[in-house]
Amino acid sequence: MASFSISNIESWERFYRANFINSLTGFKSVNLIGTVNELGQTNLGIFSSIVHIGSNPPFVGYINRPVKAAPHTLANIQATGVYTINHIHPSFVQQAHQTSAKYAAGISEFAEVGLTPEFKENISAPFVGESIIKYALSLQQIIPIKLNDTFLVIGKIISIHIASEVVSEDGFLQLDKAASVCSNGIDRYYTTELIKRYPYAKPGIEPQKIS
Amino acid sequence: MASFSISNIESWERFYRANFINSLTGFKSVNLIGTVNELGQTNLGIFSSIVHIGSNPPFVGYINRPVKAAPHTLANIQATGVYTINHIHPSFVQQAHQTSAKYAAGISEFAEVGLTPEFKENISAPFVGESIIKYALSLQQIIPIKLNDTFLVIGKIISIHIASEVVSEDGFLQLDKAASVCSNGIDRYYTTELIKRYPYAKPGIEPQKIS
Repeated sequence: MASFSISNIESWERFYRANFINSLTGFKSVNLIGTVNELGQTNLGIFSSIVHIGSNPPFVGYINRPVKAAPHTLANIQATGVYTINHIHPSFVQQAHQTSAKYAAGISEFAEVGLTPEFKENISAPFVGESIIKYALSLQQIIPIKLNDTFLVIGKIISIHIASEVVSEDGFLQLDKAASVCSNGIDRYYTTELIKRYPYAKPGIEPQKIS
Repeated sequence: MASFSISNIESWERFYRANFINSLTGFKSVNLIGTVNELGQTNLGIFSSIVHIGSNPPFVGYINRPVKAAPHTLANIQATGVYTINHIHPSFVQQAHQTSAKYAAGISEFAEVGLTPEFKENISAPFVGESIIKYALSLQQIIPIKLNDTFLVIGKIISIHIASEVVSEDGFLQLDKAASVCSNGIDRYYTTELIKRYPYAKPGIEPQKIS
């Protein structure tokens, strides 16, 4: 085992530290967020900081980097109050990753990378046509994280569009069969394989494998 | 494709909705958080809402459920200001899941599930001896999320302990080779397989596979 103190971490070269710390937090849900600006111009960005906030009401959060580093998605969400989150599958990982390039405001990443904007009734933000698991959100709150000028953006799910065969009888979504990818660090993408499902844990009871 | 509106979602049976919404947000980094209370009694809990906040300074967040549902870890962090985050590997997934049982305050999940508390110099919170990737944090801020009485807990990494062979030359951590598991929903655990690594994306440049 190697051990590193905060002094070690602070002394690391910038990109070495970014790689290390970004991958230390583990595998991440990586998704495309679709928005429009006030002129209706579409925008698409890749985000790997989606976090479950609650099921009832259905709240989802993501961390937005400082405004200078990642301005467009946040500005569009503030302007319109609506956005979509779209799972990424192996067939378009390359296009999804390419949305992380710094395109100018008003340039649509959909056209630049070759993904299909898809509009659904009553939702002004575009979904990704190629994604088989996607949902729209209504902005609830933007919480500034003053420690490093980032933001926790929280939305309420207002509609879900999903390939029917992914949904289990108990509501669980078989994301491994849907081949939704996860990421690690800033540039690696992964498929997954189920180890086990465990039942609800209670004190003093040895858990049994469900399947 | 099946489509569901917020009215559909709100009408779902409670456990069906919890399963659906918890898995909709994608694969999650699942980790064990180690703490002590003011008497020095150890506590270990499983959390699947770890989120990267920043690399410099190295800030990591997690979502704590409402105090009634998940009181001990949060109280210990508030009391001592120090906690550890420990990756989970396939050899002890079952023990890790069992920490989600509602043990009384003062009962150590380490002893109950059979994991080894490991203390390292100057850190009052216990690490998980069986984990080969783990780090200690100093509490920076607890941000209440008033929408649903949850909390964003943010810590600064103060030390890292990791199997040397996991660390790449550029600082990236090979978590698939380390077999750090990820989770989906509330009860399923997964290993991962690398699809691809992509280079830093720039506008107008077709990305190439690095490896």
